[in-house]
Amino acid sequence: MISVKRALNIIDETKVTPQIKELQISKALGHVLAENIIAPINMPNFRQSAMDGYALIWNENKTFTVTNESKAGDANTIHLEHSEAARIFTGAKVPENADTVVMQEHVSRIDDKFLITNMPKKGANIRPIGEQVKKGDCVLNKGMVLNEGGIGFLAGLGFKEVHVFSPPKVSILVTGNELQKPGKPLKEGAIYESNSVMLQMALHRFGTHKVKTFKAKDTLKATKKAIKKALEYGDVLLISGGISVGDYDFVKEALNQNFVDETFYKINQKPGKPLWFGKKDQQFVFALPGNPASALTCFYVYVLPLLKKYSGFSDYHLPRLEAQINSDFKNTTGKTLFLKAFYNAGQVSILPNQQSSMLNTFATSNVLVTIPENVETLKPQDRVTCINLNGYGN
Amino acid sequence: MISVKRALNIIDETKVTPQIKELQISKALGHVLAENIIAPINMPNFRQSAMDGYALIWNENKTFTVTNESKAGDANTIHLEHSEAARIFTGAKVPENADTVVMQEHVSRIDDKFLITNMPKKGANIRPIGEQVKKGDCVLNKGMVLNEGGIGFLAGLGFKEVHVFSPPKVSILVTGNELQKPGKPLKEGAIYESNSVMLQMALHRFGTHKVKTFKAKDTLKATKKAIKKALEYGDVLLISGGISVGDYDFVKEALNQNFVDETFYKINQKPGKPLWFGKKDQQFVFALPGNPASALTCFYVYVLPLLKKYSGFSDYHLPRLEAQINSDFKNTTGKTLFLKAFYNAGQVSILPNQQSSMLNTFATSNVLVTIPENVETLKPQDRVTCINLNGYGN
Repeated sequence: MISVKRALNIIDETKVTPQIKELQISKALGHVLAENIIAPINMPNFRQSAMDGYALIWNENKTFTVTNESKAGDANTIHLEHSEAARIFTGAKVPENADTVVMQEHVSRIDDKFLITNMPKKGANIRPIGEQVKKGDCVLNKGMVLNEGGIGFLAGLGFKEVHVFSPPKVSILVTGNELQKPGKPLKEGAIYESNSVMLQMALHRFGTHKVKTFKAKDTLKATKKAIKKALEYGDVLLISGGISVGDYDFVKEALNQNFVDETFYKINQKPGKPLWFGKKDQQFVFALPGNPASALTCFYVYVLPLLKKYSGFSDYHLPRLEAQINSDFKNTTGKTLFLKAFYNAGQVSILPNQQSSMLNTFATSNVLVTIPENVETLKPQDRVTCINLNGYGN
Repeated sequence: MISVKRALNIIDETKVTPQIKELQISKALGHVLAENIIAPINMPNFRQSAMDGYALIWNENKTFTVTNESKAGDANTIHLEHSEAARIFTGAKVPENADTVVMQEHVSRIDDKFLITNMPKKGANIRPIGEQVKKGDCVLNKGMVLNEGGIGFLAGLGFKEVHVFSPPKVSILVTGNELQKPGKPLKEGAIYESNSVMLQMALHRFGTHKVKTFKAKDTLKATKKAIKKALEYGDVLLISGGISVGDYDFVKEALNQNFVDETFYKINQKPGKPLWFGKKDQQFVFALPGNPASALTCFYVYVLPLLKKYSGFSDYHLPRLEAQINSDFKNTTGKTLFLKAFYNAGQVSILPNQQSSMLNTFATSNVLVTIPENVETLKPQDRVTCINLNGYGN
């Protein structure tokens, strides 16, 4: 048995080699950039009017004749004389030899002539070429997470595809003779299987969409065969159940027979003590406890960081928050506790029903309060560390 | 022109009628429950062993003979005598007339006999029927957001489907002659169109997946026709561009001709001043500024709350955070400002490049700092309100 600290260190030290793939930008939301983005164009790439108004050659004159028009999208080749002006709109190309745009609010117009009532400085209201982005500049850095702003920016630069880190494919293997599919009345001694959909949803929510589920009965042969098949699909394999020490827990032996090397087994924590973690070449295997809430706790604390690391995230752990606890708490277990809790504005309430088989508390919690193994008592207002279950920021 | 406060009030006062649909639980992640969930079974629904050990009828004896076995999933009909015990495993059904389970660590076994070395209390290590959930109890409330914990819990109760609020279908209409698809070199005077993919990604990230994009050239006829088509698909229509006061901005008139009633037009804010919001029966229309960062700001502050309300969320605004600003700031505009910024541990830095056409700052920001119209100067350590762009919690 190892400490939580040691287990987290092992996850941190585990080397993964993220895969790179090219994706259409509209498929790249939430992915991590695997390349520096070099601007292929200037932004703007022509001299652009910043206002609705009139483009002209700045001079001592105050009266101009409107001889042309440039609206957004026009590829104009207008040539102005000194007494001429072009009607122009925001975003439109400024005529080649114009050097100033006068706002429409600053002129008094009659028919095709106007008088400037408020003379701008020479060069006013023109966005020069490359004002925002210069061609050749590095504008987005490898390692950043693509959100709607980043993807919109790529589109604005003319990109259709982008290189990103590819999240791993994940196999879920569910073991247990007692498990029954929903839809029919429960058989005597059976329970409804919930871990596969729970893990699938957790994977989806955090950006892993390539997921396949496998099932095995509680025999060594069936478990061994199912692990072999599951490893043919997944870069990462999550096994649910069968890892305790009962006579019908065959997962450890079946992993061994599939040449998956144990990295650790059992952590001094509650829930989730019998967590097993191992490796076969570049594939990773977590054997999670069968109890739903234990499995989900282990997922948030250990599995998800490895998946995020594999997906190219540099901040791969769920973010931590500091909060004041609002009640007494005693930890008589000598173990590190992960407690489902509700955080609001710096205060955190530990929820009732912490049993490892109760998932509904997870449905209403937004953090896991971590109480270290050596902390025995907490008083109201004491500060605790919370794992924020609502995600990864930028 | 109205104030930001008034515009937000209007969004709050806008009545929407969320649609309800039945979904497979594996499709319901992130949706809001539209029904109270009543437990259809007890959990557990049989007396379950909490340990690996031996089930027996508690009595003064300390020596027992193992005559049976009950493993997880067995529908056992074992009947024990007073001197008999059944080998039993965690999660397995306790024989009908057994009343106690002794942990395997508390017996000394030789062949089929064992001696209890540490006598448990009568009733120990048995989870009674309904210990966790009682059949008929309301276990999840209408209005809660379904995460992986909630969906796993529904699966454990045997649910295959669930009633949720249906997010709206959204049409995006992009206007502007200057807009060009990515993939080919830019024509003179053109820019790459980026708002449709940006809005589509923002919609996806916040749970709206039914999205269709429409395009229109800058004529009244084309704009009117495109709005009509877009309203045939979407419950909500987002229009990008054409809402300023240039001679080629036809959106306002085209909306009018499609019988969409204006609720407000123009807000005293920067960016995003020319935002237009209106209604046609139960359909809602936002006409967003064409500048990408202005459009995205309006999306976060006004559009997203309406979409979330439509999807059944009670906390439909992006969450607000309080933070200390780390630099001076002057607001000489008399407008409410929304500034792209980076929040970390209670501190916030306003990012450079706040221009309304620059999206790359959004790619690296995680909050929008709100500076009210009547605040003119801020000093380092002053407290500001930040809009958290990373989502809706539970």
